[in-house]
Amino acid sequence: MIDDDLMRRLYPVERLAAVRDAVGEAGLGAVLLTPGADLRYVSGYDAHALERLTCLAVPAEGEPFLVVPRLELPAAQASPAGRLGLEFVPWEETEDPYALVAARLPAAGTVAVADEMWAMMVLRLRDAMPGVRQVAAGEVMRRLRMRKSAAEVEALREAGAAIDRVHALVPGLLRAGRTEREVGRDIAEAILAEGHVRVDFVIVGSGPNGASPHHELSDRVIEPGDPVVVDIGGTMPSGYCSDSTRNYGVGEPPKDFQEYYGVLLEAQEAAVRAVRPGVAPEAVDAAARDLIAAAGYGEYFVHRTGHGIGLQTHEHPYIVSGNTEPLEPGMAFSVEPGIYPGAHGARIEDIVVCTGDGFERMNTLTRELVVVDG
Amino acid sequence: MIDDDLMRRLYPVERLAAVRDAVGEAGLGAVLLTPGADLRYVSGYDAHALERLTCLAVPAEGEPFLVVPRLELPAAQASPAGRLGLEFVPWEETEDPYALVAARLPAAGTVAVADEMWAMMVLRLRDAMPGVRQVAAGEVMRRLRMRKSAAEVEALREAGAAIDRVHALVPGLLRAGRTEREVGRDIAEAILAEGHVRVDFVIVGSGPNGASPHHELSDRVIEPGDPVVVDIGGTMPSGYCSDSTRNYGVGEPPKDFQEYYGVLLEAQEAAVRAVRPGVAPEAVDAAARDLIAAAGYGEYFVHRTGHGIGLQTHEHPYIVSGNTEPLEPGMAFSVEPGIYPGAHGARIEDIVVCTGDGFERMNTLTRELVVVDG
Repeated sequence: MIDDDLMRRLYPVERLAAVRDAVGEAGLGAVLLTPGADLRYVSGYDAHALERLTCLAVPAEGEPFLVVPRLELPAAQASPAGRLGLEFVPWEETEDPYALVAARLPAAGTVAVADEMWAMMVLRLRDAMPGVRQVAAGEVMRRLRMRKSAAEVEALREAGAAIDRVHALVPGLLRAGRTEREVGRDIAEAILAEGHVRVDFVIVGSGPNGASPHHELSDRVIEPGDPVVVDIGGTMPSGYCSDSTRNYGVGEPPKDFQEYYGVLLEAQEAAVRAVRPGVAPEAVDAAARDLIAAAGYGEYFVHRTGHGIGLQTHEHPYIVSGNTEPLEPGMAFSVEPGIYPGAHGARIEDIVVCTGDGFERMNTLTRELVVVDG
Repeated sequence: MIDDDLMRRLYPVERLAAVRDAVGEAGLGAVLLTPGADLRYVSGYDAHALERLTCLAVPAEGEPFLVVPRLELPAAQASPAGRLGLEFVPWEETEDPYALVAARLPAAGTVAVADEMWAMMVLRLRDAMPGVRQVAAGEVMRRLRMRKSAAEVEALREAGAAIDRVHALVPGLLRAGRTEREVGRDIAEAILAEGHVRVDFVIVGSGPNGASPHHELSDRVIEPGDPVVVDIGGTMPSGYCSDSTRNYGVGEPPKDFQEYYGVLLEAQEAAVRAVRPGVAPEAVDAAARDLIAAAGYGEYFVHRTGHGIGLQTHEHPYIVSGNTEPLEPGMAFSVEPGIYPGAHGARIEDIVVCTGDGFERMNTLTRELVVVDG
């Protein structure tokens, strides 16, 4: 059951006006949002990305409108978008919806399109509005989406608790003789059973597969002594995402693994403790990276320290060298350093929110290696 | 466990050359594919769509290459793309991958981008290749993807059998007093348990919600006498999708429902029987539509009759008025007429493959209304 009050606070009707203001301030004629995180953020409408055009247009001047396939109209009206006082512009199966959008917008100037809009729609809109220059809406949208409201932090806390409950079940699923895929399927079912509406990813990296940061699942049989990286996440009914990585030993792991795992624990802790308003994301990255490098494992930490999270698993701000835009209260992101020497690997990941004077973790299970019977 | 032999037949190494030929014949300089169905079709690589650029470039002249984030390199090499003899071009966290792509392609002419490529990537590529005109790759890719190989039909058959097993469980999950969302969660778990790796959608439309074709799940409590539309699908380990709709009565449904349900059954049967090589998709649509209109329900059939299916739930060919491109053996699509008078609604959907001389259904469960105890 979705809490109606939380949904109202998560997707406040005032947001549409805030987007219109931002569009005007950026010197854009309009922003065009197709199904995805931006559309949901602005309107609360959780529409599927499909080949029929659904498009919310928010012009700097004039009224916003939602172009929607006739057969999606009832779902759109029943969604939180129905309370925004938006004009709905339905189109029939044999109409050209791109012409409908173009006819209601200025024929010149600059229009921003949602970062994840499909190319086929970008190019149809380009052809329908030949005098208009297209830019990515990300610059405008990320300014709004990056700083989470209290309700959004509450939703991330719920998501964190749900994925923590799944991690608490993992020791019961992992044992030598099972394949990564078998364990992964059980985890996917648990992600749904513990309150998510969608499984976004399930990584079970056993032994050498743990050394490939984005390995997912294979038919490799887990062996005694394997360290196993388990990185999992899903989407809650609220729309907000979970993402957490913990590490397991199926029996006692190798000595060299234990050595770098201790370094990784310290590095993750140091990076989390570096989080507070005014700090640059690259300084959070450096807090983990410097410690890992000093211990001699620098070449094995092959990715950035983290990514923002909210309605998408990966969004701004990125915790990466070169990002100097200071952290602000409400910013939410992963802190997930890793060490991947090759024979095995490890990564520890929490979602962290920048608070008024420091940080709050959304994931609270132990970060120590959890050893299960081999 | 994924059958290695099936995977090799599903994603044959010859496909890359076929794409290159098609690119040249279409007068394109190259096709650029980011993670999604086109990339998987061509290379077998099932990469996540994320903000870091992964891009397979297939130029008409010269060798194809895959630009890939350094940390995804092991996963890309371990995927079926590793057997294609492709050049892998890894990029580091702080490099510009768009410049890498541009530097290896002609600076003028026309380049096709995958239909589902994200706008942020389309626009970064546009800016990195200012002399190049972008078009959608769909025209080229759909010619290849539309006609399924024997292995692809086998994969669709497996997917159909898996979703049929889920539908067989639905009568045990539906009863008065449960909410659509509760039933939907159980169905989602069953979709995974019966062999899918991803739940793509779960529609449980009870009573009046059945009259909104794209309603998904709500907190509505199912009542005695409700007709319930259940339209569900997922993705198999092979990459191929399932999609099937059946209708259930929680106790005896209203008389008027029973009347139009009989019409719908006949209409779906007539449309399926119209499928054979040389027939226009619009004639399959008309076979269902004419029958429904003749019975006086024409205004309540508000969508096309079907969509192609394969690596995506919705792809070419569309079974819609205006599509005159003749069916060919191997084309796979849904046949799913619906009637939605408002107080309730119904839709019957099978996936059908056009064979050498007729059709084969991928879904074989009864299409009659299944009545469970109220």
